[in-house]
Amino acid sequence: MTTPTGRVRMSPETRREQLLDLGTRLLADRPLEAISIELLADEAGISRGLLYHYFGSLQEFHVAVVRRAVEDVYAITAPRGVGDPLEQLAVSLGAYVDYVSENHTGYVSLIRAAAGGNEELRTIYLDARRALTGRIFEIAGSDQLAALGVLDSPATRLLVDGWAAMVENVVVEWVADPHDLSREDLLRRLALALPAVLVA
Amino acid sequence: MTTPTGRVRMSPETRREQLLDLGTRLLADRPLEAISIELLADEAGISRGLLYHYFGSLQEFHVAVVRRAVEDVYAITAPRGVGDPLEQLAVSLGAYVDYVSENHTGYVSLIRAAAGGNEELRTIYLDARRALTGRIFEIAGSDQLAALGVLDSPATRLLVDGWAAMVENVVVEWVADPHDLSREDLLRRLALALPAVLVA
Repeated sequence: MTTPTGRVRMSPETRREQLLDLGTRLLADRPLEAISIELLADEAGISRGLLYHYFGSLQEFHVAVVRRAVEDVYAITAPRGVGDPLEQLAVSLGAYVDYVSENHTGYVSLIRAAAGGNEELRTIYLDARRALTGRIFEIAGSDQLAALGVLDSPATRLLVDGWAAMVENVVVEWVADPHDLSREDLLRRLALALPAVLVA
Repeated sequence: MTTPTGRVRMSPETRREQLLDLGTRLLADRPLEAISIELLADEAGISRGLLYHYFGSLQEFHVAVVRRAVEDVYAITAPRGVGDPLEQLAVSLGAYVDYVSENHTGYVSLIRAAAGGNEELRTIYLDARRALTGRIFEIAGSDQLAALGVLDSPATRLLVDGWAAMVENVVVEWVADPHDLSREDLLRRLALALPAVLVA
């Protein structure tokens, strides 16, 4: 269906998704705060009115873009169900490393915004990290954890969260400067660090 | 020496140190941004003029307080030179845990300010972390590292930095909620995680 001006008419949901796609694409190589009304207008002819119609404000658009970005990270790191838990973990970590490589500037700005004062972004970020680390317990299963002498306890969750902080720190730094560490070695190190931290 | 109004006259350096002592004391149980001119006036009768005289601005005072706080962390975590490297590490970690316990609100605000957009605080924070982790290489020495099969390489420094991020994350969370983990267990886990991560 086309409008009188010849534009394709899309459902509000499709239009919203399209704007979010654009936002996450723009976020790849610029910080969140650089996604301005002017940039959206230049890149895709999106007016302030249209953006406000779908998202209420530029700030809410930023929040929606971050939510989409962490959903993307969750989706692309989904376990493939192939191999033992450590192999699966290494594959998921590889997908995470690729994501951070392809979206380094935006991802770092997202982390900084979440780690800094923005409580809404912080909540989205921490929920996403909890979902990511929660998956580890699903993959490993209580039997495999028990075989390592590890219980799914609050203490274990605390340490897994610490491991996730380490992974994020190391990967973000590694993408900026590989420190003579191959991608394969990086993944192996990070994957093996998890049982090492839990069993230590 | 007293002034005509009966106040003790102090050297500028002493006065500056005294203001920094007050700032770090105030930072213990409130975030950095809550250290306002009004609070300083209420708590210690310090005027805007006096503060500006010694620090130039409230913001520069905040930066000087953060610098002092990270110097405090560095000083109190100094190795005692007793025991093997892992024992020394656990003792230093214990001092760090105590510091974070006693200064939780302010320390969290410092981390957030550094992790967020404030580049000056970020530089101070990262320099401090580099100094803290650098000490690990001094304590362990290349012989002990070599005995573990670990070289003092860029890759090792990257992983040690990741371990430091894990320690910070876990300790800050543990102080807020111990997750059924005793202080002793916490220290043991964090200390053992370092060789585990490096050797894995």
